[in-house]
Amino acid sequence: MDEQHVLAVDLGGTNIRVAVIGESGAVENRTQLPTGAEDGPDAVIGRIGNLINQVAADAGVAADVPVGVASPGPLNPRSGVVHYTPNLPGWRDVPFVEKLSAIVHRDVALANDGNCGALGEVQFGRARNIKNLVYLALGTGIGGGIISEGVLIDGKNGLGAEVGHTVVALDGPRCTCGSIGCLEAFASGWAIQAEAEHIATTADGDMLREIAGDRPIHAGIVAEAARRGDLAAKALLDRAGRALGAAMGSFINMFDPEMIVIGGGVAALGDLIMGPAKLAMPSHSFIDMRAGMTIEYSALGAHTGLYGAAALAFVQFGKVEGSIISR
Amino acid sequence: MDEQHVLAVDLGGTNIRVAVIGESGAVENRTQLPTGAEDGPDAVIGRIGNLINQVAADAGVAADVPVGVASPGPLNPRSGVVHYTPNLPGWRDVPFVEKLSAIVHRDVALANDGNCGALGEVQFGRARNIKNLVYLALGTGIGGGIISEGVLIDGKNGLGAEVGHTVVALDGPRCTCGSIGCLEAFASGWAIQAEAEHIATTADGDMLREIAGDRPIHAGIVAEAARRGDLAAKALLDRAGRALGAAMGSFINMFDPEMIVIGGGVAALGDLIMGPAKLAMPSHSFIDMRAGMTIEYSALGAHTGLYGAAALAFVQFGKVEGSIISR
Repeated sequence: MDEQHVLAVDLGGTNIRVAVIGESGAVENRTQLPTGAEDGPDAVIGRIGNLINQVAADAGVAADVPVGVASPGPLNPRSGVVHYTPNLPGWRDVPFVEKLSAIVHRDVALANDGNCGALGEVQFGRARNIKNLVYLALGTGIGGGIISEGVLIDGKNGLGAEVGHTVVALDGPRCTCGSIGCLEAFASGWAIQAEAEHIATTADGDMLREIAGDRPIHAGIVAEAARRGDLAAKALLDRAGRALGAAMGSFINMFDPEMIVIGGGVAALGDLIMGPAKLAMPSHSFIDMRAGMTIEYSALGAHTGLYGAAALAFVQFGKVEGSIISR
Repeated sequence: MDEQHVLAVDLGGTNIRVAVIGESGAVENRTQLPTGAEDGPDAVIGRIGNLINQVAADAGVAADVPVGVASPGPLNPRSGVVHYTPNLPGWRDVPFVEKLSAIVHRDVALANDGNCGALGEVQFGRARNIKNLVYLALGTGIGGGIISEGVLIDGKNGLGAEVGHTVVALDGPRCTCGSIGCLEAFASGWAIQAEAEHIATTADGDMLREIAGDRPIHAGIVAEAARRGDLAAKALLDRAGRALGAAMGSFINMFDPEMIVIGGGVAALGDLIMGPAKLAMPSHSFIDMRAGMTIEYSALGAHTGLYGAAALAFVQFGKVEGSIISR
C-alpha cells in the first residue's frame, strides 16, 4: 500500500463498527454488527475480534497493522482496562486490550470516544495542524478531549478530560455523575430532555406536547418547538447554551486553544444552542486568548468514532508524516 | 561548582528579588530592591538587570548561566512580552526578555508567577517527581499552573492555566477580569475582603468591625472573626471554600492529577477555607480520579517566586538530572 493503514473500531452501545482507514482518511471495508451488549463483555469482545479478523482478511491487511478502539468510558488507556460504561451493562474493570489482543494477535490501542474524537479532528477533521484544541462532543452525555501543545491531556490514569463534568453552577441541577451543576446537567441531550419532560407537565408545555404527540420528548422536539417560537423551549435552549458558553470561556482561559470543535448530536441544534453559547463565551474569557481562536462544527459525521479510533492507532503505534501529536 | 545553578528573579509589585539557585534548591546571594513600579517599565527592567549583574558578579556566576524570571501576567512566555499586569502600572506589551537580555547578556526565560509556581513545586517543593499537578496560588487574585504528563500546559500564546478564571457559578459575583462567577470572585483575597467590607456595613458586621478597629478589613480579620465564632465570617469562608472545592473537583475531572498543591496567602487560612473545600470536592469529582490523589499545602513559603523562576530556567535552558518536566 502507498500509505499507512490501521484497523479502526468504534464500540457503541448499539453497534460495533470496523474499517480499514488510511492516514489520509480513506475508509475501506467498513462493516458493522449489533453490539449485543446483553451477552456481556466476553461475547462482545469476541464479536469485535472476529469482525476485525474478517475485515483484515477481506482487505488483505498485513499482520503488523495495529488496531485502534474508541470505546465509551471511563477507561484506562494505559492499562487497557474499561472500568465501566453506562451503555454496556455488566462491564466492570474489563481487561479489554488484553482480551482483544489475544483474539486478533495485533497491537491494540484503546481510548474513550471523547479523547479519540479530539485526535480524529486533528488528523482527519477541522483541526488539522492544530496543536491546542478543545473538542466537545455534545451527545446524550458530554464528552470530549483536550490537546495541548500537541499532547493529549488525560492525566495519571488517562481518565481526565471529563469536559462535561466541569461545574458551571454551584447551585445548579443534579448531574448523572453525582455532582451538581456540571455542564452536562445543562447542555447534554439527557439534560435537555429531562428539562423538556418537566416543562411538558406544566401549562408552558402545550407546544412541546403537541409536537411530540405519542413520541417521547427529545432534544429534536425541543428544537422544533423553539423554531416555531415557543418561549419555554427557547428559554430551555438559551439556558443550555449559556452554560455551554460559560464552560467554553473557562476552557479558553485554561487552555488558550487555537480552536474549539463542537461535535455530537446536540450540535445539530446549531444556532439554537450555539447562538446563546457564543453570546455568553466572550464575557467568560480573556480577550487575548479568544482573539484568533475559532469555533467550528465537526465535519466527521457518522465516521467520527472510526476516524477517532484510527487516529489513536496512528498516534500510539504509527508515525504519520508531519503529525503534530505525540504521546 | 558541583551542581548546576541559575539566576532567579521574582518580580513583584513591591519588591524585586534576585538569587542564585542550585538544582537541589540551595539559595545563595539572595538580595532584593523595591520595585519602584511608578518609574515605569524601562526603569524597573534596568533595576532588575543591574541587580542580576551585581548578584552574578558577587557569586562568581559563569557567563553562560541563564536567568529565569517569574512575573505577574498576563504575558507571553514564547515572545517574552508582558501584555500588562495590574500590579505594575503602565506596563503594556513590554518586550521584557529582549530588554533584559540586552542588559545582562544572558539567556532569559519568562513566565507568569503561577506557572513558575507549578514548576517550582515539581523541582523543589511538595510535588517532586509528580507528572500530573494542579497548583493553585490563592493570593490577592488566584493564579496557578498545570503540569500534565510532565508538560506545562499554557496554550497557543502561553496565556492559559488561568485557573482562577474558571466559572463556578453562572449567576455568581462579578470578577475583576470582567467575567461573572469565576473561582477568583469567591475565594481570592480581594473577593473575601470585598464581601467582608460589605458585611461590615450591616448588622451582621459587629465582630468584623470590632476586630478591624481602625484597620482596613482583610482576609486575616475575617479568619480571626470566624475563629471567635462569628457566623457571618464563617458563612463567608464556607462559601469561598465551597467554590474552591467545586473548582478543585472540576480540575480533578479535567486533569486526573496525582496532586493538588495549594499556595498563596489565602492558604494560610488553613481549615477555615480548606475544610469546606475538602468537603465539597468529592461531590464534584469522579471517585476513580480523586482516589490516590493528595492535596498538599506548598512549603516553599517566601521563596516561592524565586524557586519558581529558577525551575523555569532549569526547564527552559538546563537539564536537571532526572527531571520529569519537558517543554
